[in-house]
Amino acid sequence: MESHLSAALEYARSFLHEGAVATYIPELAKGDPTQLGAAIYAADGEIYRVGDWQQEFTIQSISKTITLILALQLAGYRKVFSKVGVEPTGDPFNSIVRLETTAPRPLNPMINAGAIATASCCMGGRDAFSEFLKLTRRLCGRSSISLNEEVYRSEKQAGMRNRSMAYLMQSDNLLECDAEDALDLYFRMCSVNVNTMDLARYGMVLAGNGKDPETGEQLVEGWIVRIVKTLMVTCGLYDASGEFAMKVGIPAKSGVGGGIMGSVERKMGVAAFSPGLDAKGNSVGAFHMLEYLSHHLGLHYFAGSECRV
Amino acid sequence: MESHLSAALEYARSFLHEGAVATYIPELAKGDPTQLGAAIYAADGEIYRVGDWQQEFTIQSISKTITLILALQLAGYRKVFSKVGVEPTGDPFNSIVRLETTAPRPLNPMINAGAIATASCCMGGRDAFSEFLKLTRRLCGRSSISLNEEVYRSEKQAGMRNRSMAYLMQSDNLLECDAEDALDLYFRMCSVNVNTMDLARYGMVLAGNGKDPETGEQLVEGWIVRIVKTLMVTCGLYDASGEFAMKVGIPAKSGVGGGIMGSVERKMGVAAFSPGLDAKGNSVGAFHMLEYLSHHLGLHYFAGSECRV
Amino acid sequence: MESHLSAALEYARSFLHEGAVATYIPELAKGDPTQLGAAIYAADGEIYRVGDWQQEFTIQSISKTITLILALQLAGYRKVFSKVGVEPTGDPFNSIVRLETTAPRPLNPMINAGAIATASCCMGGRDAFSEFLKLTRRLCGRSSISLNEEVYRSEKQAGMRNRSMAYLMQSDNLLECDAEDALDLYFRMCSVNVNTMDLARYGMVLAGNGKDPETGEQLVEGWIVRIVKTLMVTCGLYDASGEFAMKVGIPAKSGVGGGIMGSVERKMGVAAFSPGLDAKGNSVGAFHMLEYLSHHLGLHYFAGSECRV
Amino acid sequence: MESHLSAALEYARSFLHEGAVATYIPELAKGDPTQLGAAIYAADGEIYRVGDWQQEFTIQSISKTITLILALQLAGYRKVFSKVGVEPTGDPFNSIVRLETTAPRPLNPMINAGAIATASCCMGGRDAFSEFLKLTRRLCGRSSISLNEEVYRSEKQAGMRNRSMAYLMQSDNLLECDAEDALDLYFRMCSVNVNTMDLARYGMVLAGNGKDPETGEQLVEGWIVRIVKTLMVTCGLYDASGEFAMKVGIPAKSGVGGGIMGSVERKMGVAAFSPGLDAKGNSVGAFHMLEYLSHHLGLHYFAGSECRV
Repeated sequence: MESHLSAALEYARSFLHEGAVATYIPELAKGDPTQLGAAIYAADGEIYRVGDWQQEFTIQSISKTITLILALQLAGYRKVFSKVGVEPTGDPFNSIVRLETTAPRPLNPMINAGAIATASCCMGGRDAFSEFLKLTRRLCGRSSISLNEEVYRSEKQAGMRNRSMAYLMQSDNLLECDAEDALDLYFRMCSVNVNTMDLARYGMVLAGNGKDPETGEQLVEGWIVRIVKTLMVTCGLYDASGEFAMKVGIPAKSGVGGGIMGSVERKMGVAAFSPGLDAKGNSVGAFHMLEYLSHHLGLHYFAGSECRV
Repeated sequence: MESHLSAALEYARSFLHEGAVATYIPELAKGDPTQLGAAIYAADGEIYRVGDWQQEFTIQSISKTITLILALQLAGYRKVFSKVGVEPTGDPFNSIVRLETTAPRPLNPMINAGAIATASCCMGGRDAFSEFLKLTRRLCGRSSISLNEEVYRSEKQAGMRNRSMAYLMQSDNLLECDAEDALDLYFRMCSVNVNTMDLARYGMVLAGNGKDPETGEQLVEGWIVRIVKTLMVTCGLYDASGEFAMKVGIPAKSGVGGGIMGSVERKMGVAAFSPGLDAKGNSVGAFHMLEYLSHHLGLHYFAGSECRV
Repeated sequence: MESHLSAALEYARSFLHEGAVATYIPELAKGDPTQLGAAIYAADGEIYRVGDWQQEFTIQSISKTITLILALQLAGYRKVFSKVGVEPTGDPFNSIVRLETTAPRPLNPMINAGAIATASCCMGGRDAFSEFLKLTRRLCGRSSISLNEEVYRSEKQAGMRNRSMAYLMQSDNLLECDAEDALDLYFRMCSVNVNTMDLARYGMVLAGNGKDPETGEQLVEGWIVRIVKTLMVTCGLYDASGEFAMKVGIPAKSGVGGGIMGSVERKMGVAAFSPGLDAKGNSVGAFHMLEYLSHHLGLHYFAGSECRV
Repeated sequence: MESHLSAALEYARSFLHEGAVATYIPELAKGDPTQLGAAIYAADGEIYRVGDWQQEFTIQSISKTITLILALQLAGYRKVFSKVGVEPTGDPFNSIVRLETTAPRPLNPMINAGAIATASCCMGGRDAFSEFLKLTRRLCGRSSISLNEEVYRSEKQAGMRNRSMAYLMQSDNLLECDAEDALDLYFRMCSVNVNTMDLARYGMVLAGNGKDPETGEQLVEGWIVRIVKTLMVTCGLYDASGEFAMKVGIPAKSGVGGGIMGSVERKMGVAAFSPGLDAKGNSVGAFHMLEYLSHHLGLHYFAGSECRV
């Protein structure tokens, strides 16, 4: 396993020049595009790590999976899916056009508009961000996980496009609270610092059907885990979800902070990280590490044979 | 198993009134909406059947999976995926708008535009439809499978919208032949008569990674099977693919003839049929039969728990 | 003339039942749909009035023409048309889709997005709304014209869709100030109270190439008047501009407050008012009054013959 | 007048390098981009000509105005405007997207889709193209006007995008005949050879409310002339119609053959020609000649002052 991880690191490193750090959020532009790392949390409790595995980065869109878990726990299936759909879109993650043309309801919780609507379902008297942080710490198994204040402030100030989406949804009664409140929660959720070890463990929770891999405690109900993993398959890498499904075939979710978290059914959680992104907003280094590992460890959900790509 | 099939039949029958037969092709409008049937071809060779399992109907869009197999066999990966993408769309199956707005290349081979482009890759000196029919017969294990001439003529005459797509693609150099030739092949491929038993066996071929379940012969190479099943997961039921993935979780493909073919990894092929369609063009009866079977037999690819829907 | 006005009133009254007051702004929903009035300010100084001509209503989108005049005066041709185009759209007045698909720059200053961008060009140290109010009073020849505070507050609170547009434009660097500042100015501009007499006089200023019809003073430079009237022809009634051009043929601008202001080259200013709107947001009563007057007074810019519609 | 024409020629010549001949129709690609000419037919019968005024070129989209006249004469107002609207679009001339998203009915008769639908209204037992040719000859006052067979065949073979539109409209029951028949008529109508003198005379017919400027005979009914001129104002230069209205302000229609025909109310017909097109499909040389003439002869419909652009 460790030799596979090292080989994956070398393989992915040769593609790093194709990526570029996100610049639309000033704080993200400070990322070091040469960083590359990964971690695996296996079902038997073994842990494997390579490269910059312990570098912290903001969770960004990977948080959308945790937001969905929290919303389903707090508001329930009916409420959440009255505000957001479950269909993949074929559009970029920050697209607005469908909110007007197809249907007001955003197509799924893994794109920005859908995640803002989902976040709004977590409000309701309680301190939603505290709940989110508590859940994230339990899923990742690290109680020191916390908010990156600089990124949060940077996103909140720069996030005009997300603001535009939120007001359009409020105009169509798709938010459970005011647009600014939903946005503030959304920006906080995106700005939590994690490392690949944290995300690999979270991936193992999902792979184990919601159970804490150490204590066996049911952290997330099985029906919620299933919905989250299904959406990771169909919508986890924005408008490259189909390509990732074909080439890698691991339920996964990416974030513009450079991370990708994956969950191999019953076998392992896996996460990779590198700040340079491709044109669709996915980490070039992380994508290629996962592609390498999937091929060489046979992790594709239809793994009977190698993909010839 | 047989009691599950009978129960699924009863369950699905209660939803039949929600469907309506397709009317845009005159021949399809003659379907009997009270018909309902299903078949399972298990990995151990056992066969289970219920209701109108032997009723013949036209394969319609389920042929898109076989067209893709044939195109990949004949023209190869690079050629096919230079003409068509692998991303789900969120749009109806007969949508044209993205051909103009997003990118000229149709987003995937499971929507009409993508299948017409894929079909055009099967041309080239040879009699493409003969090849298609031969392959279909081997996958389904029935040498008497043949073209329904009435439906073919009806589709060819009525298919103005598909014609529109084909000419738009020819205008963008996305076809490997003239639009009318690609269309003629496409309409023929859609108009082949099958029954649920045929499709269940084909589903088992896919579930067994391309091997003939009787002879063990490799009918389709593994890398092709993997691509086809992946696209069935993300794009198999048009713009209800996400909902089907969440509620049923079986790689599947539907057709407006009323059939849905599914493939449960290493376990079984399964097919259901009923002519009444929902607003998105999927068979109401077949959808509900598969949903019932998935729940009660634990067929979801993330089957750790039941879906609470 | 007076008999024509009375006949136009009777004609238009028979269509009032087809309209409905705007409800998306709570204050506008209080309008009385039975009200109907009009005024003409002729080039010779004669004034003609009928029905509820002195009823005050908010100027709404008719203000977009004055906003454009002010922006061209303060910021100049180059600045304004770097932020907004001059093409008609075929889309509803509050459409967002083109901001994402066609080009970030809104297509013209007569739709909401374009007017918000235009308004932002009026900022810059000065009190933009005071300037706007001063200009409006001079164009309308009434110094008591003032802001309707209730409507302004109602619009500001309800205007989520306009807010969405403004943030999307800020995200694309199309505003000369912060979104909220541009919106506040825009909502104030829309919420000024006028009556048909005010607007008829303003129409006469435009018809007279920018000259005050009483003093002869040049209130607006000729090149600006020409741009404004041209945009009134092509874009003055949202996505019914083409229909209005064909049936009425008077450069005009409508507002959801129920008013339409028209300018008949060198001959007259004309305004009509009735709160009930059609599906495209234009006053049913005002549209029909202007149509009647155009036919019977030969006001179409290609008036050689009657329109047979 | 003649000195103005010569000056306009020099002015426009300096912009010719910005244009490029149309290449999507092979025959059009043979045009000589250095050609430039114009003609004026004044209300008093005087004729002025300059440069390559007698060079023949295909009428292309300028024919859309004659097609509309013919359709209104043969099929009537109600029939024609049940198939096509009267609103400007903001989209390119060959856009398909709105046929699917906004409404099946094309927005106006001056874009390709709308002209094909309008042409289909001219069918019905008679030889529609003969009727069209006869009308064109009378409007242009030249009985030798005839079809350019090479361009017609070239367009018919290359016109895949128009074919796509036609089949989409047939699918939505917007054509009065089969798509191929409507297309054949449309391609013929576009492929008639004219020169600027022909078009200037046609412009004078429109300027004179439909009367033959020599005989005084009413060639086109006044209500039809008005509709045509109104659509020339709002939709005559594709998605540059707004810019042309602001800068030139003459009801006009352009064609990708390089011609623009204009009609100055009661004063003159004017036409210019140069094969090089801008990005929106309008002749660069013809646009600038008309702009120059409008400025120096005061031809803008709101000509009170010069445009400062």
